[in-house]
Amino acid sequence: MRFTSQTSSDGVTEQFFTLGEIPGVLWTPEDARGARPLILLGHGGGQHKTAPGNVSRARRYAAAGFAVVAIDAPAHGDRPKDEGFDRIVAELRAGMAAGENPGALVAGMHSYLAGQAVADWQAVLTAVQRLDRVGAGPVGYCGMSMGCGLGIPLIAAEPRIRAAVLGLLGVQGLAEDAARITVPVQFLLQWDDQMVRRDQGLALFDALASAHKTLHANPGKHGDVPSFEEDNSLRFFTRHLS
Amino acid sequence: MRFTSQTSSDGVTEQFFTLGEIPGVLWTPEDARGARPLILLGHGGGQHKTAPGNVSRARRYAAAGFAVVAIDAPAHGDRPKDEGFDRIVAELRAGMAAGENPGALVAGMHSYLAGQAVADWQAVLTAVQRLDRVGAGPVGYCGMSMGCGLGIPLIAAEPRIRAAVLGLLGVQGLAEDAARITVPVQFLLQWDDQMVRRDQGLALFDALASAHKTLHANPGKHGDVPSFEEDNSLRFFTRHLS
Repeated sequence: MRFTSQTSSDGVTEQFFTLGEIPGVLWTPEDARGARPLILLGHGGGQHKTAPGNVSRARRYAAAGFAVVAIDAPAHGDRPKDEGFDRIVAELRAGMAAGENPGALVAGMHSYLAGQAVADWQAVLTAVQRLDRVGAGPVGYCGMSMGCGLGIPLIAAEPRIRAAVLGLLGVQGLAEDAARITVPVQFLLQWDDQMVRRDQGLALFDALASAHKTLHANPGKHGDVPSFEEDNSLRFFTRHLS
Repeated sequence: MRFTSQTSSDGVTEQFFTLGEIPGVLWTPEDARGARPLILLGHGGGQHKTAPGNVSRARRYAAAGFAVVAIDAPAHGDRPKDEGFDRIVAELRAGMAAGENPGALVAGMHSYLAGQAVADWQAVLTAVQRLDRVGAGPVGYCGMSMGCGLGIPLIAAEPRIRAAVLGLLGVQGLAEDAARITVPVQFLLQWDDQMVRRDQGLALFDALASAHKTLHANPGKHGDVPSFEEDNSLRFFTRHLS
């Protein structure tokens, strides 16, 4: 793990790093020492580790005492381009322009990336928890849309993750992994999501095997999650990881 | 409005009253003076104004600075028996024992009570807001199951109510009133509700015309709403009425 820059402001330290080929960012409380809860923060499709929503959420969590780490997903952000992925994205755009329901194409895109994404997260989790200021505290995962599509296989495979905030995605391609998830989940659904059919989103919530899962649905489109849900997510992680 | 008893403990004053034929309870912060947000608290079918869930919620809200008032619904608690209502309840029980979906029978029961219940709440709201320690602050309504079935016609008819926590009920008989509700609503749904079909509960949330509405769904049966939803309700009212 190689740190390439470090800045601190408003009580939060932000460090860019690479781990092998994986570019990432770690946020911790300034002067943090000792083990603390860690949140793995997955970004949406076409976004990257420092998308504005990611950064504001990460800084907020770090100010509350958490460590937060984000990485670029395969074929995103500072990662190399990938012809197979570009082809899938082109098909997805063409399908949506033609008025197709994008569920199957989105699921295919996530499935194409998931194997690498899961391996990346597992390596980053191991490396970050070796740092003194992070340590081997309880771990949560937070990701919407593609962050949910890559997070569900990760959580199904990774026993170190003990709670998750997921959502903005349908069940296609994810039912089997969802049925292996038993940790507490807070699941966000946008009632008028133009990318995710309502019944498919409800079916993904339904497919999670967690005894403690809670669905929050709000009016609006894919990108319109109300800001009070950020408070709810932080409270959820505080309840389950502190 | 005639007060019949008053006790105070843990910083909360509890006063029983009658307003005409309506028996009620008012909770306020001990030594409260001046206007404050007021919550109208509706109880479930077969329950009454001091059902344990009502009292714990009311005391919690009063400790947070709210005034809270609960009344016995028509044909409930200390109200006189009603042969028409008893007949409806007997039909409901027989239908459920025969494995029928109770939605239509429940809707009929609520419809039988709603006219009187709405008039009762309007009279109580007027009377309670005349008290110095309550005053004409913002008003919310909280009711699940039958409390939702009587609350929806009330909120549709009553412009003084500015936010509501509702749920545990399906859309049957309520679509028109729900479509007249535009205030913020937090709506609770139990994912495995044996009394309310999931699609009917989702359809009631869908029918609300509120731009600010949020659905919270949790696993479990009709009576299994997790206790953290009480915190969520209090935060919702604090956000919209303070």
